[in-house]
Amino acid sequence: MTRFLPRLPFDDDRMKEECGVFGIFGTSDAAAHTALGLHALQHRGQEAAGIVAFDDNQFHVHRSLGLVSDVFASEAVMDRLKGHAAIGHNRYATTGATVLRNVQPIFVETDMGGLAIAHNGNLTNAHQVRQDLVKQGAIFQSTADTEIIVHLVARSDMNDMAGRLVEALKQVVGAYSLVALTEHALIGVRDPLGVRPLVLGKLDGAYVLTSETCALDIMGATFERDIEPGEMVIIDGDGLQSFHPFTPDQHRFCVFEYIYFARPDSQVEGLNAYEVRKFMGGELARESGVPADVVVPVPDSGVPAALGYAEEANIPFALGIIRNHYVGRTFIQPSQHIRHLGVKLKHNANRGELAGKRVVLIDDSIVRGTTSTKIVAMVRDAGATEVHMRIASPPTTHSCFYGVDTPSREELLAAQMDVAGMAELIGVDSLAFLTVDGLYRAVGEADGRRINEPQYCDACLTGDYPVPLVDRDGGYGSRQLSLLDEPI
Amino acid sequence: MTRFLPRLPFDDDRMKEECGVFGIFGTSDAAAHTALGLHALQHRGQEAAGIVAFDDNQFHVHRSLGLVSDVFASEAVMDRLKGHAAIGHNRYATTGATVLRNVQPIFVETDMGGLAIAHNGNLTNAHQVRQDLVKQGAIFQSTADTEIIVHLVARSDMNDMAGRLVEALKQVVGAYSLVALTEHALIGVRDPLGVRPLVLGKLDGAYVLTSETCALDIMGATFERDIEPGEMVIIDGDGLQSFHPFTPDQHRFCVFEYIYFARPDSQVEGLNAYEVRKFMGGELARESGVPADVVVPVPDSGVPAALGYAEEANIPFALGIIRNHYVGRTFIQPSQHIRHLGVKLKHNANRGELAGKRVVLIDDSIVRGTTSTKIVAMVRDAGATEVHMRIASPPTTHSCFYGVDTPSREELLAAQMDVAGMAELIGVDSLAFLTVDGLYRAVGEADGRRINEPQYCDACLTGDYPVPLVDRDGGYGSRQLSLLDEPI
Amino acid sequence: MTRFLPRLPFDDDRMKEECGVFGIFGTSDAAAHTALGLHALQHRGQEAAGIVAFDDNQFHVHRSLGLVSDVFASEAVMDRLKGHAAIGHNRYATTGATVLRNVQPIFVETDMGGLAIAHNGNLTNAHQVRQDLVKQGAIFQSTADTEIIVHLVARSDMNDMAGRLVEALKQVVGAYSLVALTEHALIGVRDPLGVRPLVLGKLDGAYVLTSETCALDIMGATFERDIEPGEMVIIDGDGLQSFHPFTPDQHRFCVFEYIYFARPDSQVEGLNAYEVRKFMGGELARESGVPADVVVPVPDSGVPAALGYAEEANIPFALGIIRNHYVGRTFIQPSQHIRHLGVKLKHNANRGELAGKRVVLIDDSIVRGTTSTKIVAMVRDAGATEVHMRIASPPTTHSCFYGVDTPSREELLAAQMDVAGMAELIGVDSLAFLTVDGLYRAVGEADGRRINEPQYCDACLTGDYPVPLVDRDGGYGSRQLSLLDEPI
Amino acid sequence: MTRFLPRLPFDDDRMKEECGVFGIFGTSDAAAHTALGLHALQHRGQEAAGIVAFDDNQFHVHRSLGLVSDVFASEAVMDRLKGHAAIGHNRYATTGATVLRNVQPIFVETDMGGLAIAHNGNLTNAHQVRQDLVKQGAIFQSTADTEIIVHLVARSDMNDMAGRLVEALKQVVGAYSLVALTEHALIGVRDPLGVRPLVLGKLDGAYVLTSETCALDIMGATFERDIEPGEMVIIDGDGLQSFHPFTPDQHRFCVFEYIYFARPDSQVEGLNAYEVRKFMGGELARESGVPADVVVPVPDSGVPAALGYAEEANIPFALGIIRNHYVGRTFIQPSQHIRHLGVKLKHNANRGELAGKRVVLIDDSIVRGTTSTKIVAMVRDAGATEVHMRIASPPTTHSCFYGVDTPSREELLAAQMDVAGMAELIGVDSLAFLTVDGLYRAVGEADGRRINEPQYCDACLTGDYPVPLVDRDGGYGSRQLSLLDEPI
Repeated sequence: MTRFLPRLPFDDDRMKEECGVFGIFGTSDAAAHTALGLHALQHRGQEAAGIVAFDDNQFHVHRSLGLVSDVFASEAVMDRLKGHAAIGHNRYATTGATVLRNVQPIFVETDMGGLAIAHNGNLTNAHQVRQDLVKQGAIFQSTADTEIIVHLVARSDMNDMAGRLVEALKQVVGAYSLVALTEHALIGVRDPLGVRPLVLGKLDGAYVLTSETCALDIMGATFERDIEPGEMVIIDGDGLQSFHPFTPDQHRFCVFEYIYFARPDSQVEGLNAYEVRKFMGGELARESGVPADVVVPVPDSGVPAALGYAEEANIPFALGIIRNHYVGRTFIQPSQHIRHLGVKLKHNANRGELAGKRVVLIDDSIVRGTTSTKIVAMVRDAGATEVHMRIASPPTTHSCFYGVDTPSREELLAAQMDVAGMAELIGVDSLAFLTVDGLYRAVGEADGRRINEPQYCDACLTGDYPVPLVDRDGGYGSRQLSLLDEPI
Repeated sequence: MTRFLPRLPFDDDRMKEECGVFGIFGTSDAAAHTALGLHALQHRGQEAAGIVAFDDNQFHVHRSLGLVSDVFASEAVMDRLKGHAAIGHNRYATTGATVLRNVQPIFVETDMGGLAIAHNGNLTNAHQVRQDLVKQGAIFQSTADTEIIVHLVARSDMNDMAGRLVEALKQVVGAYSLVALTEHALIGVRDPLGVRPLVLGKLDGAYVLTSETCALDIMGATFERDIEPGEMVIIDGDGLQSFHPFTPDQHRFCVFEYIYFARPDSQVEGLNAYEVRKFMGGELARESGVPADVVVPVPDSGVPAALGYAEEANIPFALGIIRNHYVGRTFIQPSQHIRHLGVKLKHNANRGELAGKRVVLIDDSIVRGTTSTKIVAMVRDAGATEVHMRIASPPTTHSCFYGVDTPSREELLAAQMDVAGMAELIGVDSLAFLTVDGLYRAVGEADGRRINEPQYCDACLTGDYPVPLVDRDGGYGSRQLSLLDEPI
Repeated sequence: MTRFLPRLPFDDDRMKEECGVFGIFGTSDAAAHTALGLHALQHRGQEAAGIVAFDDNQFHVHRSLGLVSDVFASEAVMDRLKGHAAIGHNRYATTGATVLRNVQPIFVETDMGGLAIAHNGNLTNAHQVRQDLVKQGAIFQSTADTEIIVHLVARSDMNDMAGRLVEALKQVVGAYSLVALTEHALIGVRDPLGVRPLVLGKLDGAYVLTSETCALDIMGATFERDIEPGEMVIIDGDGLQSFHPFTPDQHRFCVFEYIYFARPDSQVEGLNAYEVRKFMGGELARESGVPADVVVPVPDSGVPAALGYAEEANIPFALGIIRNHYVGRTFIQPSQHIRHLGVKLKHNANRGELAGKRVVLIDDSIVRGTTSTKIVAMVRDAGATEVHMRIASPPTTHSCFYGVDTPSREELLAAQMDVAGMAELIGVDSLAFLTVDGLYRAVGEADGRRINEPQYCDACLTGDYPVPLVDRDGGYGSRQLSLLDEPI
Repeated sequence: MTRFLPRLPFDDDRMKEECGVFGIFGTSDAAAHTALGLHALQHRGQEAAGIVAFDDNQFHVHRSLGLVSDVFASEAVMDRLKGHAAIGHNRYATTGATVLRNVQPIFVETDMGGLAIAHNGNLTNAHQVRQDLVKQGAIFQSTADTEIIVHLVARSDMNDMAGRLVEALKQVVGAYSLVALTEHALIGVRDPLGVRPLVLGKLDGAYVLTSETCALDIMGATFERDIEPGEMVIIDGDGLQSFHPFTPDQHRFCVFEYIYFARPDSQVEGLNAYEVRKFMGGELARESGVPADVVVPVPDSGVPAALGYAEEANIPFALGIIRNHYVGRTFIQPSQHIRHLGVKLKHNANRGELAGKRVVLIDDSIVRGTTSTKIVAMVRDAGATEVHMRIASPPTTHSCFYGVDTPSREELLAAQMDVAGMAELIGVDSLAFLTVDGLYRAVGEADGRRINEPQYCDACLTGDYPVPLVDRDGGYGSRQLSLLDEPI
């Protein structure tokens, strides 16, 4: 049985959030809480999951490909993960192939004891540093960029693990939010620009660090605050200490967390993701409204924006496309004459809501455009008289190098043609995207984007990359490895 | 690894549709089409799936526990299922344990050749007939009621398989829609009352028989008509022939197909299920409206009714409860002090839409009430000032014996107490159900239910059982089998 | 992972014993004892194993493809098989494909309760009876001939299970030793000619029925006696009763049990198999001795006869061929230029014992001759100056229809050519077989075979079939089944 | 399913050979040949197997727990292992837990390209060196001592891989025979004392390096010579070059290879193992003969010595104990009242050869003595009147630290008591061991052991350890790892 998770048509035409991290210190059942947290963060990575727990004497680890609810389904596994402190990780591969040895948290033995790290983000000088380390005799066990951090830690001369971690992180460039577990402490760090999210919560006396607040809600933990850009927190038996070891910089949080990645019920940097998306729909209606009979979301990504659009435009909202929730793993290869099958495995037009109507179709973004094309055809087949597509974000024109799995520019539809061209290709009567300023207004920046000091990282929409792309610009490509990955 | 599918909290508190059936005759890739059809019918049964194909020479079968997309994921499996005709079945156990030998379609060798049967429904004199057959020396391989049909066929003296099937069905009592495959024909039959659905479609030259129209849509087949109550259709190389071998009776279609079972995009006996549910919500708003700030559906079952309610009541609709789509298989047993976990694995309150608001919470039905209680508590924890629950169907007071998995009466909340008692137990400020006449109006019966000649089977809501309960009333209990089921 | 067991070169060139049976009544842990007994009988069937236990209330069953030590390795499985009585079966397929539904013991529910049967042997009128039963409406779940017995039992009108079993067995023709388990008793039966073995033992107060005495030794049970040809024993709470319901006949025990099938440490119909094989080697030396330097057995089948030959001929015995014990499952397909690989995976010439020597190579029998050819080439490559092959049984010229898996006559080397031709083909300097009378002398019949009243079944050596071949001679072929077997 | 291999009673009471290695350079299908070679070496390690192949461009690896014939059973696996050069390894754990990450060959990426190593032996300063490396920042992926070699190689400044390997090996102390594969060459090295075996063969134009000659025979390769103690051979496209980079020393080959480890058909340092064992039996008969009726080997280890003893003593040889070849994986836990079961799962007394006889029982060695005790009881139960045990080696009094899995001294019976005490405990009428000088005579040293310059490593028999025990004597214990091994 293949152990790889599904790549169904719709999923293939989305940007993928990269990873979710979770850590807890000071509770019995630390691993059970971590599994719950990872379950709530499942939308951030569905390829693999892992937990490392520490029981004051030894570390225990379980990592596997699969969904959290499968990986941690066995009582035997959970019983083995003893301890009052644990960290966990959901993976959607951004670097390194999806093989078991790349599944996080990474664990290493150093001369100061064990160290586990779970990393959300991406280092932009990973190849450069790795080449240096290999020259010095370092032996890598994975192809993940995160492993260079542990090698830097292992080689540090400092006499405390947190100091070593700071020293290591000062040698890397990139976007990262990471949680680490030592024999003494749970550590959380966020890169100086704060590109990726990391929040602090409390559960009775215990501290929690995690990517999103929905992982706090699931266990009844309270949200305390966001970890600040460039901040390191060290949580041990004496409580929490905060440090700012890195040079402070302008906060450049990833705006795509609002557009698509975050779960709608999460509080993201002070805002409710669901409401922000409704606002985006409202902005979109104001910017590019069109006469229509019904507003139909592409499920499930377009729902909040469609509700916002429908409300603002005062046009009825309807579930004109029905999603099949039971799409499991890879499915049969249909024969050639079963056409348009991909999209129909997962969706069906709800003919009663579409036939004879002018439809505004709402989605959160367009990546390659392949799915949009099929959805539009399906809506037309169901009898819609007009199809107007409205996208609740600006065109995605650039790849992300900060921990999001995006296609290369050549595959991004909006990098290849203008809106008119896209409308024609997709087959709609009209097409409009939210403007960059409209997006910024929806996230509460009434005056839109500040040109010289942008409030967010919006590189995928603007090409303005706030973290230097060292490997790319310095030509440090991934050396062709001499070992083909060993299947599991 | 356990191969049984999940029984998560929410699922446990629902009535379960029993089975989906599919058959196709006259196309290459009959099995691939059948797998697609079963995939579209996945909501009708998630425990097991099977296909039997016939290639003009031999039958080929594949049956397994699991979702359709898993059971038929392998190319090797699909390649083996050769033929121009096939039938398939999705199972949610109503009789017989969930073991492999109970997975349908049933296949038997008779002296007239092979016969495969896939059955949606339940026989109410199964125990009585089975006892007779065993006395005559019949050896049963399964505990499924469907097997008595094939034994009756095998023992018939008639010299054609369709005639034998009619003879067999005349000896059973119950609700059934079944498809059968012989070496010559695809056969479809519906019981005289037409309790369970069965529709006819065409795909190019091929005929399709299936439980719902969504299984036609997925492959681009056209909907032709419903099979009539008591009708048998025989499809072979010469086309389709229709017979009415059973005494005609009043049509008593299962009204719960509209309330919950059917997929919203299916055309059910002439009506679109999604629209009917919106009508139910509208009726509910008219019958028992209440001042409120927001209408919130229990996802996903309450969404169409909530949209109908919100529209009729002119109150904003909001996704106040967010569903986690990644709930996979059985999950960890959380320790005692992780309370209320069950419901939170699958749902989270979207605090921004609930805090400080008067909430109308919409669901399609209440079975045991356990989930409603937890959902209401979660909504209150999120800051709702009032919670008014509105149910888009009448109280479920009786068990179904016609192919739906319902708890015994002792477990049905509405059989145990009145609405006031239920409201208190669930913890809402007010609770109201749709009336029986309101339900009938929503399905297009402007004058409501005809007392003496009801238009639908509504036994679970009224206790009026249109098909005699032979086993129950005659005391033909299931004989304690002497073999404990052999795990797979 | 394929679940089928290995068919390695050497194994392929042997006759296969068919099955081992075991039953025990009157001990706690009946299933654990049965698993032990089946383990001791593993040489009689390695494809599948099963146990049915009865705990005074219910039957419990576990059947699976694989070796006994794998099938019953799990504590959970053994814990489930509760009861004071149990029967078990090792299978090497003689009829019916190797699929799970053919694995024995067979279990059925009748109107008199449960019945389990484990069968060693083969029915020679199975197709004839099966056709009759199917015409009467019987539905078969397997392709095994044993299933016709349970259908005949289920259809009997007699009011006790043992009587029904007798009635059923009177309708079949064949060779069989079977054990059956009802809700009241353990039953053992042997066909009127006593072709296949069945012995009775005692373990403290409990009775044991099994194919060979080695299954008694493993648990410290004492050997009581052989079950007689045509005898039925019924063992229940009141002890053992013996019946002779079938017309008595001349005893015709399978002489090949002595030649190859039985484990060397078993007492077979009063004789120790190891000693009989040494006698065969001694007879062979007397009949066809040849000057030589060393006597080398083909391992492991030829070892006792080689010891007997060496002793009689006063020539040193040596392990000139070494066996690799770790040959597991199916192995890689070697490329073309790795020649003679098949035989070398399992054996290697021990050059030090062969180089420069005249070798007498001893084996128990020749079936297709393919392996002998390779072994001889290997011995010559190792430097033997002469190779004289001596076979400790007469030429195998006919197929067995009584429960042994033999090739068709076309594939039996000795049916295709005379000894001189065989010697040339195999590449030996001389070849000789034991005579039929020599064989009979080795089993204690000093005057050899009685022409008119042979003491044993030796059909495979003489073509004299003591049990009528009803299906073969009546043309009752296996009807082409309309269902291809469903892989597991 | 547990993936660990069996630990059955008899196996548990033996010393375990540690590992087998194989390498081939210059043939197509290098991996297929390696799999064959490992299959022939299966007796040297049954827990895991692995192959690394190089196709002139990339390395390909497959490693797994299990037998060779299972691990490399799949065509897909073999197809993936492309290349004209490959090395392989059979593992029986001597250091490091049996988890996947410890399975060899080890593969690492260095700045000079990939390097794979397969190692037979044991380093005696592994803990000391590992501690140093970890202090310098090395990150270990396994607990196997072999990994320190690759870290030393990776850190070397030399500019060729063979030079780096020499430099690394000069820093370790221990017994080793290893094969390594680089992008340019196959390398073989043997420690200066030549404790573990390594032989060179040729197959058409290709070179082979392997632990025993039986791995040459299986593929028709010719035996060229033993690799010399302290020799390194480098095989590349230009042929074979030999170096002697290490200070020469007295050859101290492991004498236990003759007693038990080597396959009987292997040529070991110039002698045939089977013949040496017969000589040992002959010496034993001369040294401590005893009047008896039959000589019976403990199968299969005692067979050659028993043949030698019987011949020398002129007493008949008989297979008085029969082995069950089908002992698979871990078996059921028998209940308490099934006594002596352990030994009976694997062996049964052949009563006919034992009853009423004076028996000489021959085995190759006694480790803990537990099995001997059970075997003797079984032989007596079968009616032997006297049981005289003769062991074809001197008493095993010391543990091995050079790559053999032996119990600690506390568990070695011969370290705890004298021969009389052992005889009483085991329950024999007399017990005798081969003398040290008798052993040396059997291996061709007519004058026995040279006290001051012993010809072999016989530390387990004499306590004379030729390689310094650095870790043991320096107190370099295995640091308690902070990570519990992750099950697979």
